[in-house]
Amino acid sequence: MTAVTRRSILSDMAKFSTDLDSAFSALADPIRRAIISRLCDGPKSVSELSEPFEIALPSLLKHVRVLEQSRLVSSEKIGRVRTCKLEPHALQATEAWLHQHISAWEKRLDRMEAHIERMKRKD
Amino acid sequence: MTAVTRRSILSDMAKFSTDLDSAFSALADPIRRAIISRLCDGPKSVSELSEPFEIALPSLLKHVRVLEQSRLVSSEKIGRVRTCKLEPHALQATEAWLHQHISAWEKRLDRMEAHIERMKRKD
Repeated sequence: MTAVTRRSILSDMAKFSTDLDSAFSALADPIRRAIISRLCDGPKSVSELSEPFEIALPSLLKHVRVLEQSRLVSSEKIGRVRTCKLEPHALQATEAWLHQHISAWEKRLDRMEAHIERMKRKD
Repeated sequence: MTAVTRRSILSDMAKFSTDLDSAFSALADPIRRAIISRLCDGPKSVSELSEPFEIALPSLLKHVRVLEQSRLVSSEKIGRVRTCKLEPHALQATEAWLHQHISAWEKRLDRMEAHIERMKRKD
């Protein structure tokens, strides 16, 4: 491996790394994913969000905080009601990362298949 | 919220939940994502994978184990060489989850825009 390749791998790792770390980490919990699912239908108050889950409100608020820290969700308190809404950019960034890697993997498969096809034709 | 809606949310959470938990959690680390990136170019031995990183081989092996447990990667030891390859299904499942939710969010935006457009025309 050349020094240039090595530098390029390490630079790719550093780029946007912290944001992706916290977004993927936030998504690794079924309650936080269910909160995201429900916010896709529109903003909801914390008490509306807590309804289907058998957890106390402070526990739900902790999950909301994790989602806020990873910039997947934002919330605003008006009077006594805190309303949460989805912030799609972090979700889109994680999907873009996955899409890019799945595409790279599929392109490699296509190249391998084309190569095998060429070899068959030669025989 | 009706009991049926509540059951449907909880059932959605349970479905494939553990697999998604471990895949998202495995992806929340820059070294593990860099391993995935490099495996998109084809299978690699553990020592090839360790090359760009300034970490000891046992630490790299721990990351490989996490990726194996989440089914993102599989490895095979032949003689003294352990070779890793990408297993795309878990990567595809995480992308599918994200894609489904981003689409749902975008559809809601489209519906809102169409509604606003209709109201404008009425005025």
